[in-house]
Amino acid sequence: MTPHVNRQIQLANRPVGFPADSDFRFVESPVPDPGAGRMLCRTIYLSLDPYMRGRMNEGVSYAKGLELGDVMIAETVSQVVESNLDGFSVGDYVLTGGGWQEFSVSDGGGTRKLDPAQAPISTAVGVLGMPGLTAYVGLLDIGRPKSGETVVVSAASGAVGSVVGQIARLKGCRVVGIAGAREKCDYVTRSLGFDACVSHMSNAFRGELEAACPEGVDVYFENVGGKVFDAVLPLLNTFARVPVCGRIAHSNQTVAPSGPDQVPNVMGLVLVRRVMVQGFIVFDHADREPDFLRDVGGWIRSGELTYREDIVDGLESSVAAFQGLMRGQNFGKLLVRVADDPTR
Amino acid sequence: MTPHVNRQIQLANRPVGFPADSDFRFVESPVPDPGAGRMLCRTIYLSLDPYMRGRMNEGVSYAKGLELGDVMIAETVSQVVESNLDGFSVGDYVLTGGGWQEFSVSDGGGTRKLDPAQAPISTAVGVLGMPGLTAYVGLLDIGRPKSGETVVVSAASGAVGSVVGQIARLKGCRVVGIAGAREKCDYVTRSLGFDACVSHMSNAFRGELEAACPEGVDVYFENVGGKVFDAVLPLLNTFARVPVCGRIAHSNQTVAPSGPDQVPNVMGLVLVRRVMVQGFIVFDHADREPDFLRDVGGWIRSGELTYREDIVDGLESSVAAFQGLMRGQNFGKLLVRVADDPTR
Repeated sequence: MTPHVNRQIQLANRPVGFPADSDFRFVESPVPDPGAGRMLCRTIYLSLDPYMRGRMNEGVSYAKGLELGDVMIAETVSQVVESNLDGFSVGDYVLTGGGWQEFSVSDGGGTRKLDPAQAPISTAVGVLGMPGLTAYVGLLDIGRPKSGETVVVSAASGAVGSVVGQIARLKGCRVVGIAGAREKCDYVTRSLGFDACVSHMSNAFRGELEAACPEGVDVYFENVGGKVFDAVLPLLNTFARVPVCGRIAHSNQTVAPSGPDQVPNVMGLVLVRRVMVQGFIVFDHADREPDFLRDVGGWIRSGELTYREDIVDGLESSVAAFQGLMRGQNFGKLLVRVADDPTR
Repeated sequence: MTPHVNRQIQLANRPVGFPADSDFRFVESPVPDPGAGRMLCRTIYLSLDPYMRGRMNEGVSYAKGLELGDVMIAETVSQVVESNLDGFSVGDYVLTGGGWQEFSVSDGGGTRKLDPAQAPISTAVGVLGMPGLTAYVGLLDIGRPKSGETVVVSAASGAVGSVVGQIARLKGCRVVGIAGAREKCDYVTRSLGFDACVSHMSNAFRGELEAACPEGVDVYFENVGGKVFDAVLPLLNTFARVPVCGRIAHSNQTVAPSGPDQVPNVMGLVLVRRVMVQGFIVFDHADREPDFLRDVGGWIRSGELTYREDIVDGLESSVAAFQGLMRGQNFGKLLVRVADDPTR
């Protein structure tokens, strides 16, 4: 029996700097009638990811920004509750772009069925979803690590970083993580099998990072920017590769950091050490999804690759959880459980 | 009849900022006896190139710095005047690393014979030498321009930039140069066939560059850094490539420019537009020399690619000419004619 009310979270204001509670609006609207050729889906998990901050801004980032009043975007793991769409039946689990709301309508575009027997359905927005594919293509196609090289990854316990480091380990690299809290660093080395993990909160961060990379850095998988980038830069070896996946340290900055301007130094190092820096976005690499699902799916089934989820309960928790994500307070892939997961 | 005196220019002091006259020392020493397995070469042309400024610094750039008292390094076009080396005879023209002096000794390493019937011998340090190969590999292997794309090159009338732009034109690209003096810009469009050339000295530089690139920039071949880089950056298209060949605007800087720090903005643009920035050094790409000589040699013979030399006379002119190079005062590939060229 489907309820009549669809609770939603909309973009109320464009954040200036850090997103405030008042930038979001909690509304209730009628559950929509899907209509012909569409289906109604109930959100089970909604995925919270750093890229969402960019979409709250006006203008074009790599995709168009949200309009004020739009429901906040998110990938969701949902269950079909009403279907007028061939190929989808009531009860099916789907990966869809449901957004920050309890019910969404899909015409099947960008939506695929999930098989709970293959993997926990929540992994479709995590280790076997967009964050996992981001790690896979960024590391393998752009970072191109070779056995014996040193790979450094920032935000190492996160949804992307944890997969980057584990794949690098499986490829025979020395893997060094950078994370914040002590317990995250411990998790990265003990549970994920990184060779070392350094806390950027340590007063001796630079020295500890250098000590963890006695042969320099061949691949730096960039998730954060800021002082972490500054610390890795001088350690880059000749012919190092830097896939640029994110820069969460700057997501909420409203002005450029004070000087001096380090661009000339960075470019000088890029030149002298023949460094390759490349930005990438997972949406450009959908052709790699079959390889990714085969490889990472296989490693998960064999136990060679593990993952951690940080699940908060209730749509109403989404704003605080997203703010926590911006502050690095989540520990593992951050999900909001909007409705009970019938498969668990 | 070989003279007895070898005039040389040595590194006297490490420059602090711009290289001063007093950083060089003019000395006379006996012309060396080559000894067994070596040959004595007389310098005809010595090549002046921006990379030399880096070698005057202490410590490692991409190659070890000179020691104080060392003869300044340079590639030279020389003639064999005495040979105890199989394969080289008196009178042969050679490309060798003779340095800033009238005579040098070679054991044949890094030295190859030149055929004056194939091309003017001076081109061996220019369009058919290191600067030409730099342009060839930087543009084709790193920039990877596609027909119809827009290629921007800074220092467009120089030894590297002029070849970059002409190859890009031959590959079907829209080619926009950036140069200084008006006469250089005119040369770039009229003689080299670029579609446009913008002067970085213009007060309206940014607007003129944008107008010259109505469809944005797909490849920016970076030779200079500084405000030219700043102006190109916002014009970069999604999936743009930036081969980083040089940064002459910063060669003589002793402190980083004042803030704010633009690194976060640059990295943000690299991410959002999926830009690839890659430093490179020609010495890593010697395997491409046969392709380069075939292609660029062919284009020169067919008249499809042209070049300009800026020749100053006399070893004693080298310091002032090098200082002029640092200021962008040369117009074309800068050479010092140390002795008469018997082939002209």
